[in-house]
Amino acid sequence: MKKHYLLTPGPTPIPPNVALKEALPILHHRTSEFAEVYKDVAEGLKYVFQTKQEVYTIAGSGTAAMETAIVSFLSAGDEIIVADCGVFGDRWKKIAESYGVKVISVSAQWGKAVKPNEIEKALNANPNVKAVYTTFTETSTGVENDIKKIGEIVEKSKAILVVDAVSGLGGQEFRTDDWKVDVAVSGSQKGFMLAPGLSFITVSPKAWKLAESSKLPKFYFDIKKYKKSYLTNETPFTPPVTLIVSLQEAIKDIKNKGLENMWDEYKLLAGAARAAMKALDLELFAEVPCQVVTSAKVPENIGGKIVKTLREKYGVSIAGGQGDLKGKIIRIAHMGYIGKADLLVGLSCLEMVLCELGLKVKLGASVAAAQEILLKAQRG
Amino acid sequence: MKKHYLLTPGPTPIPPNVALKEALPILHHRTSEFAEVYKDVAEGLKYVFQTKQEVYTIAGSGTAAMETAIVSFLSAGDEIIVADCGVFGDRWKKIAESYGVKVISVSAQWGKAVKPNEIEKALNANPNVKAVYTTFTETSTGVENDIKKIGEIVEKSKAILVVDAVSGLGGQEFRTDDWKVDVAVSGSQKGFMLAPGLSFITVSPKAWKLAESSKLPKFYFDIKKYKKSYLTNETPFTPPVTLIVSLQEAIKDIKNKGLENMWDEYKLLAGAARAAMKALDLELFAEVPCQVVTSAKVPENIGGKIVKTLREKYGVSIAGGQGDLKGKIIRIAHMGYIGKADLLVGLSCLEMVLCELGLKVKLGASVAAAQEILLKAQRG
Repeated sequence: MKKHYLLTPGPTPIPPNVALKEALPILHHRTSEFAEVYKDVAEGLKYVFQTKQEVYTIAGSGTAAMETAIVSFLSAGDEIIVADCGVFGDRWKKIAESYGVKVISVSAQWGKAVKPNEIEKALNANPNVKAVYTTFTETSTGVENDIKKIGEIVEKSKAILVVDAVSGLGGQEFRTDDWKVDVAVSGSQKGFMLAPGLSFITVSPKAWKLAESSKLPKFYFDIKKYKKSYLTNETPFTPPVTLIVSLQEAIKDIKNKGLENMWDEYKLLAGAARAAMKALDLELFAEVPCQVVTSAKVPENIGGKIVKTLREKYGVSIAGGQGDLKGKIIRIAHMGYIGKADLLVGLSCLEMVLCELGLKVKLGASVAAAQEILLKAQRG
Repeated sequence: MKKHYLLTPGPTPIPPNVALKEALPILHHRTSEFAEVYKDVAEGLKYVFQTKQEVYTIAGSGTAAMETAIVSFLSAGDEIIVADCGVFGDRWKKIAESYGVKVISVSAQWGKAVKPNEIEKALNANPNVKAVYTTFTETSTGVENDIKKIGEIVEKSKAILVVDAVSGLGGQEFRTDDWKVDVAVSGSQKGFMLAPGLSFITVSPKAWKLAESSKLPKFYFDIKKYKKSYLTNETPFTPPVTLIVSLQEAIKDIKNKGLENMWDEYKLLAGAARAAMKALDLELFAEVPCQVVTSAKVPENIGGKIVKTLREKYGVSIAGGQGDLKGKIIRIAHMGYIGKADLLVGLSCLEMVLCELGLKVKLGASVAAAQEILLKAQRG
């Protein structure tokens, strides 16, 4: 009976028409019928990634595509640059180091964005670097990195640019080809408005060339297997059929709405969420806030309680801090199937919880601040 | 509008109550509510695997769990025995060789079962062997291997026994602990009556000891990460939430029916399917046929057409041969949510298709042969 309001940065709520597709009688995956679905999905993925290259679907969490982006392009002892600013940027390092790849860190403090000119310096100082790995929207801090700028820099080098776009894709402007992103990875449970279980990866011609020399051991995460199966609209291993069938429906929705319109909507919600935090006297955590999740500092002694109380008392799920940020920030998502009304529900319950936890809160203040922004946008 | 009858060895049909769970509003995976689901599922998995050890869930195809069973226990240069007799046995070799593991092959001809005494000989001749990898029911040929006997042999050595039970688990008697299986892997889309997207793995104390010395590079497939997260009823990476929620429902069904009763039912169906093949003058392909899929030889010039015509004209999906067996055999599954009536539907349509393709078929003959077996079982 409990009603849930999901304002978490993945999984995000699933539209009912998409969710119902998951419940349809299952198709066999080695049939012309499934091949048609898969082909349609593969074309749709190109649109969402804004790429002319093939997009491959891997059964697994977003990390599965990240590991594919390490093992398919590198060899042990290779040097890479990881430009990180949070939990997910750090994950690039951890995967790479697991495989004996040498990591040159260009780290930004959590809450800050990575500095493109530092990547440029690192590339100049280390001419053997094979690839630059970074994060588009760093979900753990709410920061957005300037991928377009980074793409301009990396393009001029011999290195390829690999971007974790798991949380940002579909949520805000991202152009794989125009921004010179050689490898972009994403997952199904954020901007795609789907359940987790699928991850995606694109590969540019420059990256394919690097793949040829890659010697890291691999089997399930071998991008060449996916490329080969793609020719016949298949996957090398049994695909999560029901998730792919529902992905087809989700992509249809995205196409109908239009990517640019979606980006505009989340931008508006992001503005409303930021105004709301200000009205609550909660300082924004991200120096360059992304459009898909708003992070704000909270008093340390109540950080964990806010998330727990919101969920238990009101069924509203937001996220807390991860790693070193545990208990210190809250994160409210506005991506996927999250709309204006959802945000207002979240804010009004948040106000009550802050009040209960002893913070000085003017009831209705954050809701009003968000309403102002939303109304203003309608007036144009 | 097309009606589908799935008699394929994965994916198998999904019971409607299980399928509908996939369509429920999604839970967030870092909550006490999801932790309860996950805990319940983890306990249920122990029952299906017949083990007291923890069973870990990995987001991915069955091959994901297979690769985990290679990289989590071995180091480059290690020697292993692979006792294979088909496509999936061969996969153990391919994964292992991708990682620089030395494979000692104890292969049986496709259609035959692996010989336990040959494994014993190989173990005696190669005292450094770290592990024996084999397949329970080899889906590509329909053969069943004597895991109990192999378990008795491997137990006496220093090696661990790793078994691919992807298609057999839930479909016929399999006892991880009693049969001395150190690592068993399976997937969601066969005996579990679920969509593909989840794979499972068990680890015995003997295997944990070997894991301690494992040096193969790994991140996503690192079993230690799964063990650590298990403590808090979590997975190390975002789990396919909707699939896990529907797995909970599927396991409830399996518990209600009882594993032994399920095994009995598929054994009966297997007997009926074999009698049906005999009535059609189609020779069984498997020397030791398993209970979950029946394979039979067909004239080479029509092998591919049977599968295609059955699906296109009648909506009935069965499987053909894989690899070298392409076009030479057909495979009819009786596992998961496939019952007596489904088998009869498949057989009656198969008769018509064989007839259309010019084979001499006495209409109704295979159906009658199957009916005889099914009725006899009711009479007791």
